[in-house]
Amino acid sequence: MTPLIEYEQSTGLVREVFDDIRATRQTTEINNFWKALAQHPPTLARTWSLLKEVMGGPGELDPLVRELIYLAVSITNGCDYCIASHRAAAVSKGMTDAMFGELMSIVGVANMNNRLADGFQVPVDDKFK
Amino acid sequence: MTPLIEYEQSTGLVREVFDDIRATRQTTEINNFWKALAQHPPTLARTWSLLKEVMGGPGELDPLVRELIYLAVSITNGCDYCIASHRAAAVSKGMTDAMFGELMSIVGVANMNNRLADGFQVPVDDKFK
Amino acid sequence: MTPLIEYEQSTGLVREVFDDIRATRQTTEINNFWKALAQHPPTLARTWSLLKEVMGGPGELDPLVRELIYLAVSITNGCDYCIASHRAAAVSKGMTDAMFGELMSIVGVANMNNRLADGFQVPVDDKFK
Amino acid sequence: MTPLIEYEQSTGLVREVFDDIRATRQTTEINNFWKALAQHPPTLARTWSLLKEVMGGPGELDPLVRELIYLAVSITNGCDYCIASHRAAAVSKGMTDAMFGELMSIVGVANMNNRLADGFQVPVDDKFK
Amino acid sequence: MTPLIEYEQSTGLVREVFDDIRATRQTTEINNFWKALAQHPPTLARTWSLLKEVMGGPGELDPLVRELIYLAVSITNGCDYCIASHRAAAVSKGMTDAMFGELMSIVGVANMNNRLADGFQVPVDDKFK
Amino acid sequence: MTPLIEYEQSTGLVREVFDDIRATRQTTEINNFWKALAQHPPTLARTWSLLKEVMGGPGELDPLVRELIYLAVSITNGCDYCIASHRAAAVSKGMTDAMFGELMSIVGVANMNNRLADGFQVPVDDKFK
Repeated sequence: MTPLIEYEQSTGLVREVFDDIRATRQTTEINNFWKALAQHPPTLARTWSLLKEVMGGPGELDPLVRELIYLAVSITNGCDYCIASHRAAAVSKGMTDAMFGELMSIVGVANMNNRLADGFQVPVDDKFK
Repeated sequence: MTPLIEYEQSTGLVREVFDDIRATRQTTEINNFWKALAQHPPTLARTWSLLKEVMGGPGELDPLVRELIYLAVSITNGCDYCIASHRAAAVSKGMTDAMFGELMSIVGVANMNNRLADGFQVPVDDKFK
Repeated sequence: MTPLIEYEQSTGLVREVFDDIRATRQTTEINNFWKALAQHPPTLARTWSLLKEVMGGPGELDPLVRELIYLAVSITNGCDYCIASHRAAAVSKGMTDAMFGELMSIVGVANMNNRLADGFQVPVDDKFK
Repeated sequence: MTPLIEYEQSTGLVREVFDDIRATRQTTEINNFWKALAQHPPTLARTWSLLKEVMGGPGELDPLVRELIYLAVSITNGCDYCIASHRAAAVSKGMTDAMFGELMSIVGVANMNNRLADGFQVPVDDKFK
Repeated sequence: MTPLIEYEQSTGLVREVFDDIRATRQTTEINNFWKALAQHPPTLARTWSLLKEVMGGPGELDPLVRELIYLAVSITNGCDYCIASHRAAAVSKGMTDAMFGELMSIVGVANMNNRLADGFQVPVDDKFK
Repeated sequence: MTPLIEYEQSTGLVREVFDDIRATRQTTEINNFWKALAQHPPTLARTWSLLKEVMGGPGELDPLVRELIYLAVSITNGCDYCIASHRAAAVSKGMTDAMFGELMSIVGVANMNNRLADGFQVPVDDKFK
């Protein structure tokens, strides 16, 4: 396991990123993901900057829809940490239990059908090219 | 490649499913995916029934959001057929070029961060348990 | 694309492996997979030796069942080459169209349920530990 | 983690599915997978119905072979829950330790060769098209 | 397929990124990857900026080793485009045919052993925790 | 979980492999991976033989680079056991914290870009064919 760097221990670039996380999320808590990435400050800084823009920047997709997409990917990849943390994030942005159930149904069916399309070697229809 | 069964050749259960696809989608066209699955009628019937319910049945998520989730999974799995056909489906339900670009950004970042969380062996925060 | 090395061009270790493939499979044809691996003779030799033992050596699982398992993995990974070549191999060992349809159903459902188990964060039952 | 719904707490559609699971499997025990899916009754009902047909319905592949295929997919996807529960299911249908070892060898080799075929960019042989 | 935006058609942010790609790589050619991402300028800009830093910035790993790692990931994910383009990139940084063969062997064995570890449900040794 | 076979319990082919592991690695410790594979002696013997050659045999890539490639694959596949054990192996061969951070950055970016290439359906440039 990668050692976690706590806010109190942080300095320099790590402290700057931690402060921006706190300010952006309006909380003093920092998730373990960021505390682990702090072991390599440039990765921490780039990852936070990218996530902040993609999930929180201006755009046509609302914050809940963005979280649903993120969660669908994390489930497909079987990333335990990401499933746990982004399910919580989705709930905080309005995901109800029914929405989660529907999301799971779609993720399940898509994973099934992806394999059916590959396994049956289905050629792409001309109209989709 | 699996031989494709055309509507005109179809009989029995396959014809029933093809008729329901035509009626549900209000078009005489049937995608290659269904023509290939027709090689095994029970798989065709079960898959269509499940997809119809999950993507078209009542629920809290609107049709466009469902397609975005389906597309995000298909991209993560690298399924060429599904990416081509569901990108078209998403466009038909209102996905703009900007929305597609935002979706791609989220899918990309989630795939990156899933590996970062796994690779740094980040322990799940107590609050997410 | 990796250049393919034809039997006539082969020498040394590559020729030895090609001869063993021909003798084992009772055919003068050599699949592109082996012609491509021939670019790196030690990889060719190790891969052929391993495959020959695992798929053709003594054991409790019969040759058709082994091919079905191999095909299920290849479909799950979306490997186009492997799906095409091992579907042919399975047919040569007795896989009927109905068996292929059933295999696809199982592969599809397993892929769906794998994601459902991960996404719902289902804890392992004590009896399975 | 998704809360688990016990049989005693279940009502309506969930109770119906739980009763069918008990009757089909001839046991009062219900696995955590179904208790978790019960959070979203339509997903529970559809998933059980599909699994029951695909794994238990009539067909050319016998029950043990079906479980071996299911297990091979679950291992390839790295789904801990599914590996644990379907390994037990396979054992209950006759999988010996030797069969499991052979299955693992095939799953391992197929995963290796899938990457070799992709990485060497092997073109599909004409005879496989 | 996403339309490709050629250098001559590019304006604004896209033109700036294209100019930086040309200057950094010392060539007027721009790969299709960037021409496709140009459909969504913010994704293009962020992706280029990240790739440039990670693959070309200062660090302890030399450029060839970075490309080998990138290629190993792309092969594991079965991304045809990335395998083709990064194999060329690796060759341009010094990858010999023998190195590519060794890389393939390692990628193959790691993919096999990843499944063996998951399938045999191997517990992590205390010394690795 | 698969029962672990300790050195003291081992006999025959398993004992031979265990002795070779001890001699090769110059330690009396045997990792859980091998103790689990010992349940199926032919899989144990073939896997050890292959790993020993690929990771330790002669070649152009030095031992550290081989471990970095192996680790990159294991992270991409999300194999917890392999990440833990091969991170330790990489450290023992000279991987510094900075190198690990750089590796993670590359693995993350490659996973992101693999999806971008697939999702944008980027055609392979002629020069890469």
